[in-house]
Order: sequence, then structure tokens, then C-alpha cells
Amino acid sequence: MLAALHARQRKFQVILISHGAHVDKLQELLDLAAQLSVPVKSVDRKELDAMAHGQTHGGVVALVGAKPRMTAEQLLDHLDRLKSPPLLLLIEGVEDARNLGFTLRSAEALGVHAVLIKKHLWDFDAVEVARPASGAYERLPLVQIDTTDPLVTLRRRGLRLYGCVAGAKRRIYDVDLTGPAILAIGGEKRGLSGAVRSICDRFITIPSAGAATSLSLSHAASVVMAEAMRQRLLTQTAADPLPPEPQDPSDA
Amino acid sequence: MLAALHARQRKFQVILISHGAHVDKLQELLDLAAQLSVPVKSVDRKELDAMAHGQTHGGVVALVGAKPRMTAEQLLDHLDRLKSPPLLLLIEGVEDARNLGFTLRSAEALGVHAVLIKKHLWDFDAVEVARPASGAYERLPLVQIDTTDPLVTLRRRGLRLYGCVAGAKRRIYDVDLTGPAILAIGGEKRGLSGAVRSICDRFITIPSAGAATSLSLSHAASVVMAEAMRQRLLTQTAADPLPPEPQDPSDA
Repeated sequence: MLAALHARQRKFQVILISHGAHVDKLQELLDLAAQLSVPVKSVDRKELDAMAHGQTHGGVVALVGAKPRMTAEQLLDHLDRLKSPPLLLLIEGVEDARNLGFTLRSAEALGVHAVLIKKHLWDFDAVEVARPASGAYERLPLVQIDTTDPLVTLRRRGLRLYGCVAGAKRRIYDVDLTGPAILAIGGEKRGLSGAVRSICDRFITIPSAGAATSLSLSHAASVVMAEAMRQRLLTQTAADPLPPEPQDPSDA
Repeated sequence: MLAALHARQRKFQVILISHGAHVDKLQELLDLAAQLSVPVKSVDRKELDAMAHGQTHGGVVALVGAKPRMTAEQLLDHLDRLKSPPLLLLIEGVEDARNLGFTLRSAEALGVHAVLIKKHLWDFDAVEVARPASGAYERLPLVQIDTTDPLVTLRRRGLRLYGCVAGAKRRIYDVDLTGPAILAIGGEKRGLSGAVRSICDRFITIPSAGAATSLSLSHAASVVMAEAMRQRLLTQTAADPLPPEPQDPSDA
């Protein structure tokens, strides 16, 4: 709840606190609520239990709107305001809310600026996504795309689309991921869709130790994002303390 | 089940196949069973349903012994037979069977030779570990350690113990992970134990994009293991154009 308040993306209607809750532990929450003009009410614990539908609530429940999704247009504005070359993650075919949550958490920790998802977000239980995401679900821009049009637009803006596929000739270590980039990872069953593959600038692969082995979607994504971060940190250290300039824009 | 048969670590008593199962889809299983002298019996589907206790079984159930754990002594023999510098993963404080399973899967894919775990393995539901491990649970040597003594022995054998901790000065990119090494990762709640910290050769950290962010245990482990693999691949490419060494032959 603190992450959601800090992120300021959701509309908070009211925060309800049970009569017996320890107010000293809730100080940061109360301060933020006051700052954001969110009303706080003290209610009966039984009332909270009923509202939480059997989930634990620790004596605090908030009535909030859904997290607003970023539109493709808002994403472009967002990228324009970045001080370093954009790094986006595109995931396809993620089936499991928990895996999506872990992927968002890793994406935020590894410096990704936004996550694109080719899936209706309402297919996922928001609570199941938010728990493993550990706050990243509230903070990280998440863009739902229905067609590949936004990807084409992003490529025109100079972002290179790297498709991670098994058996690609180039390893993730063989390509320059320091420029504006979208890293595309497909689900474990079908991999990347034909529509996305057809517009990729490069296919890349994570080398693995044996034929029988492979990484799960969220772990593969973490390894590729970490490699992008490694290359970017290296560039910063080598050149000067300022963030690197964007690389040559490859046009379609 | 195929992975377990291939790994040859478990004692198979019998494989039961339902009357209606498609035998052509089971050919590899039947061939392996014959090769390993495991009896195969055709039984009633109802009998299988009862044995599977409500879990799906796809028409095949095997009666098998538990996967034998590798002892610390067997591990040393195992390492002696490797053709490349040993790379081990030590995990502490993993609470969740599913996270353990994903960690094993990543460890195998990223070239780790054995996983050390400071936890009673019987605390975990083997089925819950095996499912996300996707066969790695059957193939990858798993060593349960109760004290740090085996770590001290491994260090005497020349393995360096790298402790991954938040805020360490050295980044994972700043140390040489191409030599014999143990990568130690602690649980999300408490990190590495004092006992393990006190014998680490180096502390290393995964750089992250913001203070609020961190990786989960299995994702942090994947990023560190991938960095070790990257460095090792680089050394091989530089020294010799041949593909990486195959994994050690399946052990006795």
C-alpha cells in the first residue's frame, strides 16, 4: 500500500484502519495519506475482515482505483523524458500472474524503463501479480499492446528490437545493448509470435549448458536485462560519468 | 519421469501404464525402461487415479525411490572428474519449494555443477520442487550441508567462496569468476548467515537501478550464474575456438 501511495498512480478513495491497529507502525502511511488528501477512517476489525474477503490485511484496508495503464502515446512521452537510452522489455505468452510479478520486479531492479505486454492485463489477478512484484507493479510503467503497431513506432524512433529465441547465432554478449532497445522474450510454450519475429532487428540467444536445459521466462528475461545493464554500466565507467549518448537510430 | 529415467539416480520399482494409454507416445519411456530392466505393467486407469492421489498422471505412474542426495564426499569425487573449473551454487534461506525448483533449473541451464543447500531437503515437497525444475531436479547434483565444514574443505581444495550481499563494494562484473568458485546467495529475509559470511573470500553485489528494488533469490542467483558463464565462455573463445565442454558424464 505504501508503494502504491508513493507511486501516485492510483486514485485512493479512503484508507480504513482497524480500532486496535498500532498507529506508530502506520505513521508513514498516515503522513502520506495526509499529504495526498486521502481520508483515513477508523473502523471495526470485523468490518475490515469482511472487506478483505479472507485475505490478511494487518489492520489496514484501502479502497483504491485500478492502477492506470500507460498508453502507447504516453509511453513515447515517457521515453522522451529519459536521460539515458530507453531500455524496454516486451513479454509475450506469460501465463502466470506470479511469473509476471517476478518479471516486473526484476525489470525494475535491472533498470528497464517500461514493460510492454501483449496480453489483456485483466486476465491476471492484480493481487497475484503485485505480491511477487514487491512494489514494482505500482512503480514500473506497464503498457498493454494489442498489435505490433506500437513496436513499429518505437523502431522508427530509433529503438532496436532484439528477439530472444533459442538457437539464434548471436549470443546476448555479441550484440551492443547500450543503445535504445526493446528486449523481446516469448513464453515457454511457443516462444515469440511470428508477428513480433517478423519485425525484429536481431535475434539473440542466452547460451546454455546443455540441450535439455532452458530458463523460465522470468529468469531468461532477468539474464538478458542484466546483460544490458552490465553493458550500460561499462559504457558509463569507460567514457565519463555522464550517461551514454543514444546510438545510431536504425530506421525501418 | 523421462528425466528421472535418463538421470539414473533413482531406483525404479515398476512403471504402470493405463490400459487406454497411447503406446506410441510412450515409446521412449518403454525403450528406456527395457534398457534399465524396469518392469512395465498395464493396469486399470482407476487404479492409477487412486495411486496418483488426485494429481494428473497422463496414463503413466512409476513407483520410484527418493532421489539419492549426494554427500559432501561424493561431491569432491564429482568435482575431481570435471574437465572445467568447478562452479557451485550455495543457497541459504530458501523458503519456497517452487523458488528452489526454478533455482535448480536455472543452475543447470547456466552451467553450475552442483547446488549446495543449507536446509533439510525433506522440508520441501519433492513434487513442488520438481515441477518448476523441469528435469533439473533429477539431473543436477544436490548436496545438503548442515555445517560450514564442507565449505571449508572446498576452499582448501582451491574453490573461492563469493558471498552475494547487498551493498558490497565489488560488483559481480569486477571479480574473476572463471576459476573454481562457489557462489553463495542468501534468502530475501535475512541474506547470508553469519557463519557463511565469516568464511567468504569476497563479497560481491548485483548493481540495481534503484534503492527500492531488489531481485528475488532465484533471479539474483540466475544473474550471478549467468555472469560466471559469460566470463567462462569469453575465456574459452579467447583461448580456443572449440565449443564449451560438455557437462560431466552422468555420475555413478
